[in-house]
Amino acid sequence: MYEHKIADIRPIELSPGYSARLIHTERMSFSFLEVKAGSASARHSHPQEQAAMLLEGEFELTIEGEPIRFGPGSLIVIPPDVPHSGLAITDCKLMDVFTPVREDFRKLSEKQK
Amino acid sequence: MYEHKIADIRPIELSPGYSARLIHTERMSFSFLEVKAGSASARHSHPQEQAAMLLEGEFELTIEGEPIRFGPGSLIVIPPDVPHSGLAITDCKLMDVFTPVREDFRKLSEKQK
Repeated sequence: MYEHKIADIRPIELSPGYSARLIHTERMSFSFLEVKAGSASARHSHPQEQAAMLLEGEFELTIEGEPIRFGPGSLIVIPPDVPHSGLAITDCKLMDVFTPVREDFRKLSEKQK
Repeated sequence: MYEHKIADIRPIELSPGYSARLIHTERMSFSFLEVKAGSASARHSHPQEQAAMLLEGEFELTIEGEPIRFGPGSLIVIPPDVPHSGLAITDCKLMDVFTPVREDFRKLSEKQK
């Protein structure tokens, strides 16, 4: 199966206000997030490289203490193991891609089946 | 630098009708494409895993002989070394992500600097 229809995936609440539809490939995990305005994600890091792109709204990522407020039209790249946190300025639609696969997210996806 | 503003990148014509803005990270290459309706990309393959998402328009990917016509809201995953070709049904905006880096694309980006 090559095509994944994002709307057909059952969403998982990763943290309060962060609803994710997850797709795992051989080498990547994609997280299509809907985030409620004002919802924050705590500072964390992971060994995967991450890139984030906003599809709708405005979001703020703080990477190693540097706040970056962005909207659609930017790609934000978070190197492996670099601490970051997030805050939705407005209601948002966000795509995160990780490589390699987020095994913690894959377990969440499998639990849901 | 964590933020890449896509519009600030100078586009490269990858093939006739395929204008790409390229971003290379440690482990991924992103290609933000604008494609003219009717433009075709020849059957090819590469060792990178690829995922494609349409931001605007309608596109057809043919993967191992199977045509998949899609619009925004789908993620198409092409495994490493699997032959595929493309056709823009309408004018399109398309995001491709590859892992690991497309060294052939990185060379194109470097030539342009």
